[in-house]
Amino acid sequence: MTSITTSLSEQEKLNRLRLSRTERVGPVTFRDLLNIYADAETALEALPGLSRRGGRKKPLVPPPREALQQELDRLAELGGELIVIGDEKYPKPLAAIDSAPPILMTLGWTELLHSRCFGIVGARNASAAGMKLAGEFARGLGAQDLTIVSGMARGIDTAVHRGALETGTIAVLAGGIDEPYPSENIPLYEEIVEKGLVVSEMPLGIQPQARHFPRRNRIISGLSCGVLVMEATLRSGSLITARQAAEQGREVFAVPGHPLDPRARGPNSLIRDGAQLTESIDDVLDILIQQNLPLRSSQREIHLQPPPPADLPHASFDSTRLAIREKLSHTAVPIDDLIRLSGVDAADVQTVLLELELAGEIVRHPGNRVAFVK
Amino acid sequence: MTSITTSLSEQEKLNRLRLSRTERVGPVTFRDLLNIYADAETALEALPGLSRRGGRKKPLVPPPREALQQELDRLAELGGELIVIGDEKYPKPLAAIDSAPPILMTLGWTELLHSRCFGIVGARNASAAGMKLAGEFARGLGAQDLTIVSGMARGIDTAVHRGALETGTIAVLAGGIDEPYPSENIPLYEEIVEKGLVVSEMPLGIQPQARHFPRRNRIISGLSCGVLVMEATLRSGSLITARQAAEQGREVFAVPGHPLDPRARGPNSLIRDGAQLTESIDDVLDILIQQNLPLRSSQREIHLQPPPPADLPHASFDSTRLAIREKLSHTAVPIDDLIRLSGVDAADVQTVLLELELAGEIVRHPGNRVAFVK
Repeated sequence: MTSITTSLSEQEKLNRLRLSRTERVGPVTFRDLLNIYADAETALEALPGLSRRGGRKKPLVPPPREALQQELDRLAELGGELIVIGDEKYPKPLAAIDSAPPILMTLGWTELLHSRCFGIVGARNASAAGMKLAGEFARGLGAQDLTIVSGMARGIDTAVHRGALETGTIAVLAGGIDEPYPSENIPLYEEIVEKGLVVSEMPLGIQPQARHFPRRNRIISGLSCGVLVMEATLRSGSLITARQAAEQGREVFAVPGHPLDPRARGPNSLIRDGAQLTESIDDVLDILIQQNLPLRSSQREIHLQPPPPADLPHASFDSTRLAIREKLSHTAVPIDDLIRLSGVDAADVQTVLLELELAGEIVRHPGNRVAFVK
Repeated sequence: MTSITTSLSEQEKLNRLRLSRTERVGPVTFRDLLNIYADAETALEALPGLSRRGGRKKPLVPPPREALQQELDRLAELGGELIVIGDEKYPKPLAAIDSAPPILMTLGWTELLHSRCFGIVGARNASAAGMKLAGEFARGLGAQDLTIVSGMARGIDTAVHRGALETGTIAVLAGGIDEPYPSENIPLYEEIVEKGLVVSEMPLGIQPQARHFPRRNRIISGLSCGVLVMEATLRSGSLITARQAAEQGREVFAVPGHPLDPRARGPNSLIRDGAQLTESIDDVLDILIQQNLPLRSSQREIHLQPPPPADLPHASFDSTRLAIREKLSHTAVPIDDLIRLSGVDAADVQTVLLELELAGEIVRHPGNRVAFVK
């Protein structure tokens, strides 16, 4: 199946936004729904039936169209843009990751989403030397036509954005694009909006919370062909970003440090696990050139072709549902195993899983696995 | 061929010392000579003939027996010991390296040569943090029954020996064992003689010179199952030690550092080349335990069996000599290629190469290669 992206209508964009904001519709479910149905409107119409067949009592109701239209109006006032997956404006490297965000809101130069991006992240509580080096890396790699992506946090991230302001930088926020955080970085935020790009998958007006950060980090790495980690403790968000980058098939780079410096623990541990030991800009460029700046993970975009089945199986489909339910448990099982063990067609397995997920019966786990909700 | 070491007579030890001190007899030639002849005395007798057939005009004369006896008397006065290769007292890991020193002189506890040894080396111009960490590594690994080997230089080496004084440490000197260097380390030297071991392959009374240090470094790594490098610039002796350790099949460990610290360049470059990134004692122990503290290089000791040919080929051997000479040039060629290309028996090739080497016609190169002297 070749992946096809088109220029979507404003109506379809709004519907995709609406679908993405519906309870129980996460990035994977969103992708699965759009792989089955022709468009978001059809998918939205199918939701109540799907969730009922999965065993849900209360109907699954998408948020009202009006509320979303208001949010889009507010976005237009800000000068921002809605970019939905499947649209040609959606960045391909990000579309390729497992849990690609269904929608992005952007503020600034959206063209940057189509340049070659490279992530640099690190400690909030960074050393002066680390800040200096971060700025140099950002400036130097920026000069090599790489757009530098980071999270606009204190410390390393701040130095990174500042270093790359003139060549192009993308700040991925954990809250809405109109909610810069931390407040001390509001001037930096304004400069990025003016000269670079601010991106988020969150609704406008949402302030970032701790649980948002890991989700945000997958976008930093997902946009990037590689990620460099500088100064990070073992339990830091930067390390999460690096692990996600590796899972996404992106190259991971790390600046080593002395064992007596706790901020070296993270990068050193990444190097021990196979990250590229990085001392200079050339260390990064050598690897990227070797790899021809590739996008290595398999393309898992939304496939608009072939057209969806007009009629989905209903009552006569019950034995299929039962066969799949029987193979599920509270222990996560790979979907591939479900297909094999149940003897059910892959497309039908996906349909049943969608129903169960929308009904809140099952949850997705990393590695394309599912389990009953505990 | 199994390698056999025995307890050698005092006479044979003196002869081996004499053979090792003969002009043009380096470690490899020494080993080849003793692989051909039954003992050092026979080899010494064969030297003039061998070198003449190789084309040497002036006869090759070993140093007088009396001079060496005087040196041994002086060694006994110091309380030192002569250990020659082939003797059971010679450390096996060191005997296994390509250019194993034919003799060692020792001062202190020679038993340490038969314990499991681990080398730690680093910058003379070390940081305070580096010195502290070096001492901790030495103390901690010493507590795990590893004898800590180093070069008694300023900086890291000094901290290493001090840290391991109570558990066992070996200082390998670049000059004679009676010539401690640098002079500020004379008190440390005296402590090592009392509680540890001082080792050198150099004659008594020889002060170390710059060219001696790389040769000395191969003994540090040769004695050790692994070598840890801490703080070293890219052109440092510590890096030579590490490269030699890798060539000898020993595990190389390196403590990383921040790119802005020039003393981190060496270890970081080693890690990039495959050395174990090391932050703690456990990082070393984990690897050594995994490998069961092995001696990984092939045993290339002196083989006293089978007995040597009573009569070496002479005049009738000329066509063989010619065949080998024809394959030699000023570009180093692997001896294996010479054997293959000349069609001459391997033992005969070795004999002809010995003759040429003793005559000063050819030189040995790393990787078991030879070339005409330029």
